[in-house]
Amino acid sequence: MAVDLAHDPDVAALAERTARFVREVVIPVEEAHDGVLPSEAARVELQDAARAAGVFAPHASPEFGGHGLDMRARAAVFEEAGYSLLGPIALNIAAPDEGNVHMLERIASEQQKARYLAPLAAGDVRSCFAMTEPAPGAGSDPDALATTATRVDGGWRIDGRKWFTTGADGAAFAIVMARTTGVPGDRGGATMFLVDATNPGMTVGRHIPTLDESLFGGHLEVEFSDCRVDDDAVLGEVDQGYRYAQVRLGPARLTHCMRWLGIARRAQDIAVAWAAGRQVFGSRLADLGMAQAMIADNEIDIAASRALILRACWELDRGAPAGTEVSIAKTFAAEAVWRVVDRAVQLSGGRGVSGDVLLGRFLREVRPFRIYDGPSETHRWSIAKRTVGRHRAEQAR
Amino acid sequence: MAVDLAHDPDVAALAERTARFVREVVIPVEEAHDGVLPSEAARVELQDAARAAGVFAPHASPEFGGHGLDMRARAAVFEEAGYSLLGPIALNIAAPDEGNVHMLERIASEQQKARYLAPLAAGDVRSCFAMTEPAPGAGSDPDALATTATRVDGGWRIDGRKWFTTGADGAAFAIVMARTTGVPGDRGGATMFLVDATNPGMTVGRHIPTLDESLFGGHLEVEFSDCRVDDDAVLGEVDQGYRYAQVRLGPARLTHCMRWLGIARRAQDIAVAWAAGRQVFGSRLADLGMAQAMIADNEIDIAASRALILRACWELDRGAPAGTEVSIAKTFAAEAVWRVVDRAVQLSGGRGVSGDVLLGRFLREVRPFRIYDGPSETHRWSIAKRTVGRHRAEQAR
Amino acid sequence: MAVDLAHDPDVAALAERTARFVREVVIPVEEAHDGVLPSEAARVELQDAARAAGVFAPHASPEFGGHGLDMRARAAVFEEAGYSLLGPIALNIAAPDEGNVHMLERIASEQQKARYLAPLAAGDVRSCFAMTEPAPGAGSDPDALATTATRVDGGWRIDGRKWFTTGADGAAFAIVMARTTGVPGDRGGATMFLVDATNPGMTVGRHIPTLDESLFGGHLEVEFSDCRVDDDAVLGEVDQGYRYAQVRLGPARLTHCMRWLGIARRAQDIAVAWAAGRQVFGSRLADLGMAQAMIADNEIDIAASRALILRACWELDRGAPAGTEVSIAKTFAAEAVWRVVDRAVQLSGGRGVSGDVLLGRFLREVRPFRIYDGPSETHRWSIAKRTVGRHRAEQAR
Amino acid sequence: MAVDLAHDPDVAALAERTARFVREVVIPVEEAHDGVLPSEAARVELQDAARAAGVFAPHASPEFGGHGLDMRARAAVFEEAGYSLLGPIALNIAAPDEGNVHMLERIASEQQKARYLAPLAAGDVRSCFAMTEPAPGAGSDPDALATTATRVDGGWRIDGRKWFTTGADGAAFAIVMARTTGVPGDRGGATMFLVDATNPGMTVGRHIPTLDESLFGGHLEVEFSDCRVDDDAVLGEVDQGYRYAQVRLGPARLTHCMRWLGIARRAQDIAVAWAAGRQVFGSRLADLGMAQAMIADNEIDIAASRALILRACWELDRGAPAGTEVSIAKTFAAEAVWRVVDRAVQLSGGRGVSGDVLLGRFLREVRPFRIYDGPSETHRWSIAKRTVGRHRAEQAR
Repeated sequence: MAVDLAHDPDVAALAERTARFVREVVIPVEEAHDGVLPSEAARVELQDAARAAGVFAPHASPEFGGHGLDMRARAAVFEEAGYSLLGPIALNIAAPDEGNVHMLERIASEQQKARYLAPLAAGDVRSCFAMTEPAPGAGSDPDALATTATRVDGGWRIDGRKWFTTGADGAAFAIVMARTTGVPGDRGGATMFLVDATNPGMTVGRHIPTLDESLFGGHLEVEFSDCRVDDDAVLGEVDQGYRYAQVRLGPARLTHCMRWLGIARRAQDIAVAWAAGRQVFGSRLADLGMAQAMIADNEIDIAASRALILRACWELDRGAPAGTEVSIAKTFAAEAVWRVVDRAVQLSGGRGVSGDVLLGRFLREVRPFRIYDGPSETHRWSIAKRTVGRHRAEQAR
Repeated sequence: MAVDLAHDPDVAALAERTARFVREVVIPVEEAHDGVLPSEAARVELQDAARAAGVFAPHASPEFGGHGLDMRARAAVFEEAGYSLLGPIALNIAAPDEGNVHMLERIASEQQKARYLAPLAAGDVRSCFAMTEPAPGAGSDPDALATTATRVDGGWRIDGRKWFTTGADGAAFAIVMARTTGVPGDRGGATMFLVDATNPGMTVGRHIPTLDESLFGGHLEVEFSDCRVDDDAVLGEVDQGYRYAQVRLGPARLTHCMRWLGIARRAQDIAVAWAAGRQVFGSRLADLGMAQAMIADNEIDIAASRALILRACWELDRGAPAGTEVSIAKTFAAEAVWRVVDRAVQLSGGRGVSGDVLLGRFLREVRPFRIYDGPSETHRWSIAKRTVGRHRAEQAR
Repeated sequence: MAVDLAHDPDVAALAERTARFVREVVIPVEEAHDGVLPSEAARVELQDAARAAGVFAPHASPEFGGHGLDMRARAAVFEEAGYSLLGPIALNIAAPDEGNVHMLERIASEQQKARYLAPLAAGDVRSCFAMTEPAPGAGSDPDALATTATRVDGGWRIDGRKWFTTGADGAAFAIVMARTTGVPGDRGGATMFLVDATNPGMTVGRHIPTLDESLFGGHLEVEFSDCRVDDDAVLGEVDQGYRYAQVRLGPARLTHCMRWLGIARRAQDIAVAWAAGRQVFGSRLADLGMAQAMIADNEIDIAASRALILRACWELDRGAPAGTEVSIAKTFAAEAVWRVVDRAVQLSGGRGVSGDVLLGRFLREVRPFRIYDGPSETHRWSIAKRTVGRHRAEQAR
Repeated sequence: MAVDLAHDPDVAALAERTARFVREVVIPVEEAHDGVLPSEAARVELQDAARAAGVFAPHASPEFGGHGLDMRARAAVFEEAGYSLLGPIALNIAAPDEGNVHMLERIASEQQKARYLAPLAAGDVRSCFAMTEPAPGAGSDPDALATTATRVDGGWRIDGRKWFTTGADGAAFAIVMARTTGVPGDRGGATMFLVDATNPGMTVGRHIPTLDESLFGGHLEVEFSDCRVDDDAVLGEVDQGYRYAQVRLGPARLTHCMRWLGIARRAQDIAVAWAAGRQVFGSRLADLGMAQAMIADNEIDIAASRALILRACWELDRGAPAGTEVSIAKTFAAEAVWRVVDRAVQLSGGRGVSGDVLLGRFLREVRPFRIYDGPSETHRWSIAKRTVGRHRAEQAR
C-alpha cells in the first residue's frame, strides 16, 4: 500500500472516451458558435450525442442514469469535458445543474429525488441555485443573507432578491437559500427550499450582462415576493442551509476547477500549435526563449492545478472536511487558469485577440472564476485563519 | 535651472478643461453605449462638442486648427481624454488618426498636407494606417513585410494583404507601407503611400472580430490588388518607410499609453468608490488589508506609468532617439494598465464582471495593447539588445 | 516653461565626478573587503579621498562644508554614490548620518548646530537615530512608542530600550525619540533629544546580527536608563517629535532609494557584462530570450524607480507634503531593487551566488530595505488610506 | 483501485518519528550554530542520535542499513528531515551523499559497493560528486564538459577542473564525470569514475564562498591533473556517464525539493507563530489582511510544491522517464520555497532579518537552489521543448 496516482482503468477509459467525444462532436459546435450554445435544441442534440457516446452524466449515480464517479474520478473526466466550453453542458455536468445533482443525491428526500433529481440528472430539465444576493446581501460574506423564509400556515413564505443566479432562464426549478433565523450580519440559520419556476411568487428578471457568456441559461436576477411553498419544499432540515451549502460548495468549487483546467489545456494546445508553426525574426516562435518561458509556465500551472485539485478530491472522498484543501485548489487553479489563457493569448499575438481563435472568448469566460465561488481574497482569508488556528491548537497541546 | 515636473499653466488648464469635458459630455455617451461609439453621427456630435469646449485636436498644429502640443503636454491632456473610452475620438486624438496627423505634419508635402492632413485634423474625414500583415507577413517582425510596390509607368502598383488595419471601415484614405526593395526576411527598403479609399485597387474586407471593440472603424482586412497610384502618392521619399514608421511609432506608442493610463485611472476610481461604500464581513471593503493592497498597487502602477511616459516624451521633445525610453514606457504601461483594470475588477467582485459598470469592457479593451504596437516580448528583446550594446560600447572606450 | 528632466549642469558634473570617484577609488576597497568597511581608519581614508575629489558631503549646506544639493540634485548624485556599497560612507551620505545632517540643519538651534551638526557634516564624528524599539514598542506603528522622557529638575530623564539603532557603535551622539505625552498605543506627544554617547545613562548594547552587514557602525540595541539630559538637549520643541520625524523620514526614505538604486544598476552591470561574454548552449547568454527578458526587466525596474524617486523629490523641493509620493517611490524602489539584484544573481548562475562577485552580498544588503523605513505593507496601507480619503473629499465637493 | 494519496502506515510512522527527532534533537543544535554544522564530531553525534532514534539512512536499502524507501516514501520522510537545515545530515540524506548512495546502489559493481557504498551509507565516510565545471565548462549545459579521461596503460588518466563540488572538503572519494569521447560542445560520451581522495592526482582547492553555507563540506574547487585510476574505477560502463547522471539527477533534484520544502514549512511556522502573537496598529498581526494574504500564499505554495514532488516521485517509482515531471517539480518548488521564505521574512519585520531567528539564514540557503541542479531557465527550456515535441508527435499521428 502506497501512494498511487493512477486512475482506475474504467475511469481512464471514460476520460479517454470523453476526450474523443469532445474533439469530434463538441468542438465543431463550439467553434461554429463562438463558444456560446445557441439554443435549447442544440443542448438536447449535444446531450443525445453524449448519451450515444456513453459519456453522459458521469457524476450521477447509476440509479439516475450516470456513472457514479467519485470526486477523484470526476477530476479525470471533467477536465476532458472542460476541454471545450460546451463539453460540460453536453455531458450534463455544467454549473449549476452538476452541483445541484450532487447535493440532491445527498440531501433530498425520496419524493424530492423522484420529482427533481431524476429529470435533472437525465437532462430533461435544468435548474438553478439561488443563493447570491446583490449588495448589501449575501455575496462573499454568507452571513449577510437577506432573503427570508417565514412560517406561514402549512408552509413557508419566501421574500428577497437574488442575482447572479446562473441558469435561471429556462430552469424548471430553483434551490433557494433563505434565512429562517436571525438577521443579516449574524450567522443565524438558513434553509434551502425547492421552488418550481411556475410558482407565481418567483420572478426571473433580467439577464445580467457579464464578461462571461458561455454558461447556458445566463446569470439572472430573481425575485421572490410572497412566494408560498409547502413544507415538503424544504430540502433537508430547517436551519441547516449553511451546512448543506458546504456539501454543495466544496465539490462544486472543485468541479469548476476541473472544467476550467480543461480550457487551460485547450488554450495551451492552441498556442503551442501556433508557436510550433509560426516563423518570426528568422526563428520558429516556439524556439524563442521568451515564448518557451510562457509555454513552460503554462505546463507548470496546469500540472500544479491538477495536482491540487486531485488532493482536495481525495480528501473529500475519504470524508475529510477539506475546507483548506478546497480553498487552496480553488484559489490556485482560478488564478493559474487565468494566467495560462493570458499567456496563450500573448503567445498568439494579434491572432490571439482576434475572433479567429477562441482564446479571447476563453479569457472572458475564465476571468470571473477568480470571483465566483468565493473571491480569491475570501479564500486566502479563510486559509490564513485556519493556518493560524492550527498553530494555536498545536501550541495548546 | 533644475528638474521641473510642473506642466505649463496653459497645458494644465487645457488638461483640466479636457477632464471636465470628458466627465460632463463624453462619459454619459460612453455609459449609454457600453463604451462603443454607435455611429458616425455620434462621432460628429462629440467632436462638435469638443470644439465648442475648446479641447479639440490638441495635438495638431495651430495651422491645422489644433493646440500644437508637444509630447510632454500631450501626456497631460491625452490622459484626461483617455479617462473615457470615447474621449480620444471626441478630441480627434484616437488611433490611428492621431498618429497619422503627427506623421503627416512631419513628412507630407504641402500638397499632401492640403489634401489629406487638413481634413483629417479637422475631423472631416478619418484615415487608416496599413502596415501589419497576416502571418507570415509583417507583424512583430517588420522585416517580414510582404506587400510590394513596384514601379509602373507614371507611378506605382501596390499588391498585398494587410490586417488589423484599424479604422479602415469608413476611412477616406490609407497610409500604406509596401516593400520597394528586397524580399521578405531582409530589411530592404519600404515606402509609404497615400491611397484614397476610392482607389479600385484597394478593397476593405471583413472586420476582424477582436476582444477589443471600442476603436472606431474597427480592425479590418484590407487587400491591395493591382492598386495603381501616382508618384505624388509617395509619402516622403522612396525606401525611407521604416524610418518614417519610427517617426510615427514612437510617439504613437506613447499616446496609446497616455490614453490607456486614463482608463486605468478611471477603473481605479470606479473600484475605489465601490470599496469606499461597500460593507462586507462587518467592515468597509476599503478597510480590508487585501483590498488596500490592491488599491495601493493600482496607485503605484499608475504613478510609475505616468512617470515613464513623461520621461520618454521629454526625450522625444528634445530630439533624442528615445527608442529604449519608449520601449520601457510602452512595456511597463501596457502591463501596468492591464494589472490596474484587473485589480479594479477583482475589487468590485460580481459587479466588476457585470455590465453594470464598464470594468469588464475596459478589461477587454486594454488586453490587446500588450500585443498591439509591438508585443511586450519584442520590446523586451529590443531593450535588452540596446542594453548589451551600450555595455559593449562602454567596454570599447 | 514646461516639464524639464535635465539636471542642472553643475549637478550633472558633480554626479559624473562622483561616478568616477566611486569606480576608481571606492570599488577597489569594496571588492577587497566583501562590501563591508573594515575599520574607522578606512572610513577616514575614503572620506579624505572624497574631499580631495570634490565630492564630499553633497547634501550639507556650504556653510557646513557641503554642496547644498536639493532633493532632486541628490537623486542624481546619491545614485552614483550608491553604485558601491561604500560610496555613501565615502561621501558622508550614509544612513543614519545623512538623514541626521538633513534634520539638524532644519531643526537644531545654532548652539546645537555648532556642537553636533558641524562635526557630523565634516565627518569628524558619527551619529545615530534611536527611534525603533523591540516589540511591543515602536516599529511599523510609531504610536507604540514606549521610551519615555520625564521632566526632572533642570532637564529630562529618559528611560527605554531601542533596537536596530544603526551606526550606534562608535557614534558620538544619538538623536533619541521619547514619549513626553500619553501612553503606548495612542499618538500623544514625542520629543527628540540629543544625547552624548558619553552620557552614563545611555548604554550601547549588542550588535544585532542581521542579513545586511554593510552599514557602518552596525544595528544595535541601545538602552536608556535614568539617562539625564539638560533642557538644551531638546531638539526643536517638546512634543513635536512626530512632526520632526516626518522632516527626517520622507527625505531619508528617498535617499535610501537613491543609494539602493545605485546598487541595482551595479548588479545589472555585473550581470550584463557576464551575459555578454558567457557562451552557453552554443549561444551567447545575452542572446537567449529568457536572459534578455531578465535584462530588460531590470532596465524597466531601474527606470521606473528613478522616475518615481525624482517625482517625490520634486514634490518635497516645492514644499508639498508628498507623503503619498514618498510611499509610492519607497515601496516600488525597495521591491524593484530587490528584483533587479535577484535577477542579476540568476543571470550569473553559480557565479552569482559565489563570493567571486558581490551579487550575493548585494542581495543580503537590499533585502531589509523592504522592511526598514516602513515595511511595504505599511506604505501600501498608507497609500490606500490616502487614496480613499481623496475619493471621499472629491465626493464631498 | 483508485487514486490514493495516503502514505503507507510504516512510512507515515517513520515520517512522524523523523519529525519528532528533528524537533527534539536537531533543532537545538541548529539554532545554537546559526544553521551551520560546526564540526565533523557534531556530524557523528547527530548521526548516532538518528541511528538511536531509528531514523537513520531512510533511503538506503536494508542491506546497507537503511529503510529502503522508494521515492514517494522519501517525499514524506525527507520533508520532515528538512524541517531543520541539519536534519538531512543527521539522517545521512544530505547532498551529495544521498544522491551518491542512490546512484551507487543502482550502478556500482559488487566490489565497488563494498568499498564505497557500504561505508557511505553507514555514515562512516562522506563523498562528493564532481561534475560542474567553471565557465566555459559544463554548467547548465552538460555538453560543455571539458574534463577528460584518456586511456592509459592499465587504466585512465583524468585531467580537468571542477567547481561547486559540494562536500569535497573531507570527502573520502569523488565520483568524477569526465569526457571519454568527443570535444566540448558536442554530446560525445562521458564516463563516471570513482576516485579516492588520497589519489595524488586529485587536489581539493579553495572553498568557494557562497551565499549558502549549510551544506557540510562546502562547495569546492577540485583539480584533476594526471590523475591515474585503474579500470575498476569506472562506474558502470564507459561512455554511459550522461545516462547515469540522469539516474542520479532526477531523484537528486526531487530530494533537494523535499528537503527545502521542509525549510519552507519551518519558515512559515516561525512567521505564523510571530504573527499570531504580535500586536500592531491595535490588531493582531495575523488578523491584518496583507499578513493573511502572505500566510495563505505560503500555504498554497507549500501544498502545490508537495503535490508536484509527489507526482514526479510516483512517475519515477513506476519507471517512467519523468523528465518533464521532475523539471516541473524542481522549477516550481525552487521558486515557491524562495517565495515562502521571503514572505516569512517580510511577515516577521525587523526580527525577520535579524539573527534572532533563522529566517535570514534560510533565505541565504534556499536562494542558490533556483540555480543549482539546473537553473529554472534551463528547466523551462526543457519543459517547453518537450511540450512542443509532444505536440508534433500528436500531429504526426
